[in-house]
Amino acid sequence: MADLLECVPNFSEGRDRETIEAIGTAMQRNDVKTLDVQWDIDHNRSVYTLVGTRDAVVAAVFEGIKVATARIDLTKHTGAHPRLGATDVVPFIPLLDTTMDVAIEASRSLGERVASELRIPVYFYEESATRPERTNLEQIRRKGFEELREQIGVDENRMPDIGPPKTHPTAGAIVIGARRPLIAYNIYLNTTDVAIAQNIAKIIRHSSGGLRYVKAMGFAIPERGCVQVSMNLTHHQQTAIHTVFEIVKEAAAAYGVTVTESEVVGMTPAAALLDAAQRYLRMHHFRMEQVLELRLLEAEF
Amino acid sequence: MADLLECVPNFSEGRDRETIEAIGTAMQRNDVKTLDVQWDIDHNRSVYTLVGTRDAVVAAVFEGIKVATARIDLTKHTGAHPRLGATDVVPFIPLLDTTMDVAIEASRSLGERVASELRIPVYFYEESATRPERTNLEQIRRKGFEELREQIGVDENRMPDIGPPKTHPTAGAIVIGARRPLIAYNIYLNTTDVAIAQNIAKIIRHSSGGLRYVKAMGFAIPERGCVQVSMNLTHHQQTAIHTVFEIVKEAAAAYGVTVTESEVVGMTPAAALLDAAQRYLRMHHFRMEQVLELRLLEAEF
Repeated sequence: MADLLECVPNFSEGRDRETIEAIGTAMQRNDVKTLDVQWDIDHNRSVYTLVGTRDAVVAAVFEGIKVATARIDLTKHTGAHPRLGATDVVPFIPLLDTTMDVAIEASRSLGERVASELRIPVYFYEESATRPERTNLEQIRRKGFEELREQIGVDENRMPDIGPPKTHPTAGAIVIGARRPLIAYNIYLNTTDVAIAQNIAKIIRHSSGGLRYVKAMGFAIPERGCVQVSMNLTHHQQTAIHTVFEIVKEAAAAYGVTVTESEVVGMTPAAALLDAAQRYLRMHHFRMEQVLELRLLEAEF
Repeated sequence: MADLLECVPNFSEGRDRETIEAIGTAMQRNDVKTLDVQWDIDHNRSVYTLVGTRDAVVAAVFEGIKVATARIDLTKHTGAHPRLGATDVVPFIPLLDTTMDVAIEASRSLGERVASELRIPVYFYEESATRPERTNLEQIRRKGFEELREQIGVDENRMPDIGPPKTHPTAGAIVIGARRPLIAYNIYLNTTDVAIAQNIAKIIRHSSGGLRYVKAMGFAIPERGCVQVSMNLTHHQQTAIHTVFEIVKEAAAAYGVTVTESEVVGMTPAAALLDAAQRYLRMHHFRMEQVLELRLLEAEF
C-alpha cells in the first residue's frame, strides 16, 4: 500500500449536470475508487475525491481533464469561485504509509501529460512547487484566468512550470501539486461572546504565535447561541488534534467558558483520531497494524 | 460491505510445519484475506485470521477443515491446550456494519457442510448455540476428545447439533459459532501492590457487580515493577473502552495510584478506538463515514 494516493481534482463546472457526469465517468476505472462528488451552483465548480495507487489515479484524472478540456469553455464561465482553468487545481495527497515523494511524482507525471498531450500550461504548487512563491495556490491564481491570459507570455513571474507560455484558448491553465491531508476542525464554546473565540483563535494559530500547523478564526454561531473556533489542521502528525483540543479547552476555561463540542467537517485520516484515542487512553505502545480495518485495507491494495 | 466477516479457525497442529502450511494454502482464495497465522508448539495448535464476505470465508474455511481432517490424527495428538477436534473451534465475527445474523448464517452453513460431507459431528456455540448451556465453549469441550468419544453416543447432553452421533475416528468433533469481537485490554498501575489491581478488577468486572461486558483479573508484573488490571471486553459497543478506562483510573486514584499505560493486545476493531477519540474530543455528531480509510474499505468490498 506504499503508493496509495487521494486525488481531489477541482473542475470549473457546477451547473451542467451532463458535463459533471461526463467528467466523473471518464475518471472511472476498476482500480480507482470515487469516494465523493460535490458541485456548487454559485461557485460553478465540481470536486471529486478519488483514491487508488499512483499510476492508476494519474491515468484516471488525466481522462477527466481531457473531458473537461473538451466540454468547458472558460471564456464563457462565470461563478463566485476564483479559477485559472477548466480543470482548475489537482492536489494529490499521500494516504496511510505512502510518502509525500509518491504524491509529488504523481503531480509531475500528470503535469507532463497535460502539458505535452493537451498543450495546457501547468503550475506546480504546495509540496510540488518549483519556486517558494508558488507554494501557495492563491499566489499562483491571483485574479484568475482573465488576468493570467494577459500576463502569461509577458511577465516572467507568471511563466508556467511546464507547457506552452500561453493559456489554452478555452481551458486556461492548471495548477497541480502534492499536499498533506487537511483536517477542517471546529470547537464550540458555550458563550455568545465572539471576542473569546477570536482571542482563542489568536492563541492557537501559527500566524500569531500558536501551533505550527494550525490556521484559526473565531466566529459567532447565532443559530446555536454560541461561538466557534474554526480551524484547519494542515499536518496532524506534527500538530495533533488532541494538542489543539487541550489548548483550546484550557484557554476557554480561563474565560470561565466550556467546550461543548468539537467537530471534524468532511473527511479525516483515521490516524488523526486513533492518535487522539491513544493519547487519551495512555496507549504508549500502540501500533496502527493492530486496527483490524487498516490491516484489511493493507491486504487489499 | 454488509456481509464482511472475520473467521478465526483453530486447528490442533502447532508442530508440523508442512501441515500448518497445507491448511493455510487450502484456505487461500482471491476474495479472502489471511491477516494472521499463529502457532504454538506447547499447545500444538495453530490459529488463522481470515476476512472476507460470508460465502467466500465459509468456502475457504471448509477447504482448510478438509486438509486438517486428512492430515491430523487426534488419537496421536498431544498438547497443553484442550481440544475436541483436528479442527477444534471455528468462530465467525461480524465486521463493520455486518449484523450478527450473517455470522450465525455462516456458522450454520459451514456446520452443515462439515456434518454432511466430512461426517464430523458439529456443536454450535456462542451466538449460534441451540441450547443455553452450549453458549460457553468450555461447557461443550469439557475434558476434550478422549472423554467426548466415550460419551457422545451415550449421554444425551453430549449429542451433537448436527452430524453423526459419534466422533470422527481421527478428526473428533468441531465447535462452530458466531461471536462478537473481543478486545484484550490491560491497564498498568504504578504500584507493586497486586491487591490494588485485584480489587479494581473486582470493581470493574461483571461477575462481581461491575460493567456488563467486562471480564477482569489483577496481576503482578514483577519485570516491570508494577501491577496490571487484565481485561476482556466482550461487547465494546455496549461497554466502551473509555468507560472502562475512566472507572479504573478513578478507582486507582482512590488508592493514590496512577494509570501509567493501557494496551490493546492483538487486534481491535477501529470503532472501539474511534469511539474513545469521539468521547475525549467531545465530537457528539461524528459519523464513521468521515474516516477516509473506512470509506475506502467500504468501496472495496
